[in-house]
Amino acid sequence: MNSKMDYTMPSTKITTNFLTVDNPVFCCFLFWSSVLVIKMLLMSAITGLQRIFFMIYINPEDLIFKDVELKYNNPRIERARRAHRNDLENILPYFTMALLYICTDPNPSIACNLFRIGSIARIIHTLVYAFRPVPQPSRFIAFFIMFLITLYMAFDVGMQTLKHI
Amino acid sequence: MNSKMDYTMPSTKITTNFLTVDNPVFCCFLFWSSVLVIKMLLMSAITGLQRIFFMIYINPEDLIFKDVELKYNNPRIERARRAHRNDLENILPYFTMALLYICTDPNPSIACNLFRIGSIARIIHTLVYAFRPVPQPSRFIAFFIMFLITLYMAFDVGMQTLKHI
Amino acid sequence: MNSKMDYTMPSTKITTNFLTVDNPVFCCFLFWSSVLVIKMLLMSAITGLQRIFFMIYINPEDLIFKDVELKYNNPRIERARRAHRNDLENILPYFTMALLYICTDPNPSIACNLFRIGSIARIIHTLVYAFRPVPQPSRFIAFFIMFLITLYMAFDVGMQTLKHI
Repeated sequence: MNSKMDYTMPSTKITTNFLTVDNPVFCCFLFWSSVLVIKMLLMSAITGLQRIFFMIYINPEDLIFKDVELKYNNPRIERARRAHRNDLENILPYFTMALLYICTDPNPSIACNLFRIGSIARIIHTLVYAFRPVPQPSRFIAFFIMFLITLYMAFDVGMQTLKHI
Repeated sequence: MNSKMDYTMPSTKITTNFLTVDNPVFCCFLFWSSVLVIKMLLMSAITGLQRIFFMIYINPEDLIFKDVELKYNNPRIERARRAHRNDLENILPYFTMALLYICTDPNPSIACNLFRIGSIARIIHTLVYAFRPVPQPSRFIAFFIMFLITLYMAFDVGMQTLKHI
Repeated sequence: MNSKMDYTMPSTKITTNFLTVDNPVFCCFLFWSSVLVIKMLLMSAITGLQRIFFMIYINPEDLIFKDVELKYNNPRIERARRAHRNDLENILPYFTMALLYICTDPNPSIACNLFRIGSIARIIHTLVYAFRPVPQPSRFIAFFIMFLITLYMAFDVGMQTLKHI
């Protein structure tokens, strides 16, 4: 554990603020995060529209017509839900990790390209998972790119801050 | 892609820091985020208490009494879990998006009201989903308010940072 | 609601930036967040490897050999998925809350110890849930430590910003 003195923050020193639109790396992250958030929200919307269109409901209060029964485990909707859950498992930790990574002042061109490649990979992942199933390993590769990027950022940040364990 | 020069951050310029308690917009977000986090944690607690109260366990090591069998797909608990999953799908991307939105220096009164309305909508969503099922479209409206707010923030941030694609 | 004037941020005042590597509390959070993100990514990897090793697939396009059928509800994989979902439900809100908590300038030694204890508790939670099931209440205690820490941070931040409701 660190000594008490180590905790004192140099409050008089003017520290660079990385989470501002003056920082091109942060701007790049802002743009691609917005794209990914919109993509995730569309997954919600598509699942909901499929439920209405194919009349597959899982809550009794959602039944508009009396003659529709509750149905579980519809393959099409379960596929969309698995794709959505995969987004939660991968994109949300990436958001946190990328934000922290930006605060450690990374190399700008590396950081920007990681954000671009990772975000495009996740868009492809959604397309080949939820929209039009494509033979493997297309989905695996799309998943693995973002996985590696998040892992790289976590290792990079972890190694830099190892002495603060 | 931007040229190398675009990446250089003006480190000598004193940039405004938006993620500080001196910023009323951030304070408003702090308060309502705390409320939403407590609400999400309560969902975990309620699901767990229901498992104990109705003796519905899904892990062998949770069985305290020998004569209780593992039970899956209990309607009450599955409903609480769906409400909780809906929180993960909507509140967590909102947290990221709202934090990024604050960093782009939005109109303070618009931002604060978005945080207030969105958070109250999600509390209502939980009440009409997990606690006392209410006929539609009450749950849909509560869901859709936060959905639109997150979408608006994502579009606003995305449009501002479009040149950093 | 606050008056218009309350929204004006003192832009000329140089505010302390807490999200920088000059802040030991943030560095401690950076390290332990990296560890938790790597832990969460490993959960994805382990579930995927188990699917390949035990040949339990849930998507038709994942079938490499013709004679393997789609299988659902394998106990081992469902256990890993439940542990992973528990991570999403608890670690992701913690990430948001901890980041906001750091911005409110908490007591450094309290904050650092919360991050350390909470992160280690979640690592133990994964070990006793997904890897080697251990009789309760070991998993409950590991879950409850992070639960209480997130709740404490949410209450602390919420009380500080109560007037910005």
